Amino acid sequence: MRQMEETDRLIQRCAQAIKRSKAKTVGLQYAAGFRIRSVDIAKRLEEETNVPVILSADPTFGACDVREMPVDMVVHVGHAPIPDMHYRNVFFFDDPLPPPGDFGFVDKALPLLGKKVGLLTTTQFRGWLAAVKERLEKEGHQVFIGKSGGRIAYDGQLIGCDYTTARAVEKDVDCFLYIGTGEFHPLAVALLTTKPVVVADYERGEARRLDKEKDRAMRRRHGAIVSAKEGMTFGILVSTKLGQHRMELARRLAEIAKKHGKEAHILVMDNVNQDSLEGYRVDAWVNTACPRIAIEDYLLFKKPMLTPQEFEIVLGERNWKDYELDEIRE
Amino acid sequence: MRQMEETDRLIQRCAQAIKRSKAKTVGLQYAAGFRIRSVDIAKRLEEETNVPVILSADPTFGACDVREMPVDMVVHVGHAPIPDMHYRNVFFFDDPLPPPGDFGFVDKALPLLGKKVGLLTTTQFRGWLAAVKERLEKEGHQVFIGKSGGRIAYDGQLIGCDYTTARAVEKDVDCFLYIGTGEFHPLAVALLTTKPVVVADYERGEARRLDKEKDRAMRRRHGAIVSAKEGMTFGILVSTKLGQHRMELARRLAEIAKKHGKEAHILVMDNVNQDSLEGYRVDAWVNTACPRIAIEDYLLFKKPMLTPQEFEIVLGERNWKDYELDEIRE
Repeated sequence: MRQMEETDRLIQRCAQAIKRSKAKTVGLQYAAGFRIRSVDIAKRLEEETNVPVILSADPTFGACDVREMPVDMVVHVGHAPIPDMHYRNVFFFDDPLPPPGDFGFVDKALPLLGKKVGLLTTTQFRGWLAAVKERLEKEGHQVFIGKSGGRIAYDGQLIGCDYTTARAVEKDVDCFLYIGTGEFHPLAVALLTTKPVVVADYERGEARRLDKEKDRAMRRRHGAIVSAKEGMTFGILVSTKLGQHRMELARRLAEIAKKHGKEAHILVMDNVNQDSLEGYRVDAWVNTACPRIAIEDYLLFKKPMLTPQEFEIVLGERNWKDYELDEIRE
Repeated sequence: MRQMEETDRLIQRCAQAIKRSKAKTVGLQYAAGFRIRSVDIAKRLEEETNVPVILSADPTFGACDVREMPVDMVVHVGHAPIPDMHYRNVFFFDDPLPPPGDFGFVDKALPLLGKKVGLLTTTQFRGWLAAVKERLEKEGHQVFIGKSGGRIAYDGQLIGCDYTTARAVEKDVDCFLYIGTGEFHPLAVALLTTKPVVVADYERGEARRLDKEKDRAMRRRHGAIVSAKEGMTFGILVSTKLGQHRMELARRLAEIAKKHGKEAHILVMDNVNQDSLEGYRVDAWVNTACPRIAIEDYLLFKKPMLTPQEFEIVLGERNWKDYELDEIRE
């Protein structure tokens, strides 16, 4: 029911944008969750606007990954635009979900929180923050929400390559409260900071602290670094995606590697995936594309997949105690 | 041993081309068979030329699929250029393999051949045709080799989207003899013509006629057409690869589908693969990208994957007896 309403609203807003633009052809691209509805969305947009709509069947993983299409205008569904990036003829549909009737999952977080709370979320749940803030304040908490800026479109928003909104309030808070579902974004905040991170998980209707998950992730990262230390040949991955392309960083890492007597080769690719990396004669990968890949998808790769900062530790250019999460700042 | 010699020759020829071009950065891309050697090739090219070499980790499936890279010059290994296409700053290394010491696998084909033989091969074995021709003529055969042209760089060469060299001599010959390995290219010729197709398989050291394989493939294509006939919604796939992009054809097919009361949506993508097609609400796919995909990779897809001509049969615009193999002629 909620999904039907969301789709109706999407059609209405996108059809308006298409009509306004006077585009003669439209390309539709969408986050994975919209794929099952995409053909229906394209059909309804065509009916509403009389403009042919072509779908993009290449996956898109964020606003860093807006696909070029042979059309006048792109409608990109499910990701907030990155303010720092320049888009041409792209309409972003990133309306937040309406707040739920029941905030019980937030109540469950209350016993886990300190007095001063930093609120965080992802773009789709950003419309819930005001209500959560009010609720927490009623319980006597002080609430901090980091301001948008750089790659971040909305206050309190997290994306896989930028934790500005967490860092901005880190010093002010006793703990962070993440509103949403899934583990990746709050886990990254836990890796970034020494403050406890609590997840209020809307889908599961529960709340939990991420201490164990943080420990486990740190042990995994340590393991990846240790096994890469034996390596002599490294493949440094650079994405061709506009918002993930860090060639300068890759060149710098290759230089440092050579200084330490290691062999390093730069490989460019669209999506970083094991299939494409199968069969290469390298000992470990260094990923300059989306920072999520090394942390979240480590199981999908047969060889250690390091972040740039982890590669610096491997080479002895950085200490393990100065471990830092990778973010894209270019 | 042969592979080491091939690699040495590759380094020598590509290094020459790089020096001549005065490129300051080079991108290396290669057919799948070269992946395991690619890091070593990049390293040796850097040593020879003093120019940094970046690798392309996105797979490339042919000269239709030359990858754009952020470099001055691309070295593309393992595919013959398509004469009809315009390339900018691309050096193709497609030297043929030197002829083998032993042509016994061709002798095994002799009892299977008629008097007049059409010789076919793929780019890597093209250097063997002269010796095979001589051998056949000594045995009293008349030998025909179709001329290059259009998308075909070399006489007698086959590629997955163009069978010009087979069609050119079809009327003159009693049968075709394919020199090489694998089944796809000769099987496509068998589907294209009524003349028997014999494979002289260098790797297996044997020869065979493809009658059964042709029957099986035709039954599979018939099966795909029959199951797609029930479909109401079709996804028409268009590749973003320069040499596979047939948007006009896709638009025409979508129009015809609508005329027949079917729903048809155009989807653009780089590589056509099941992962990217998972979850879409369509009943069957129509592939305007590489023609090999529907014929050779049919098992990889969960829904029927049709060629444009097969879709015409599904819609009743073409008779099964007028079945035609898909080729790219644009």
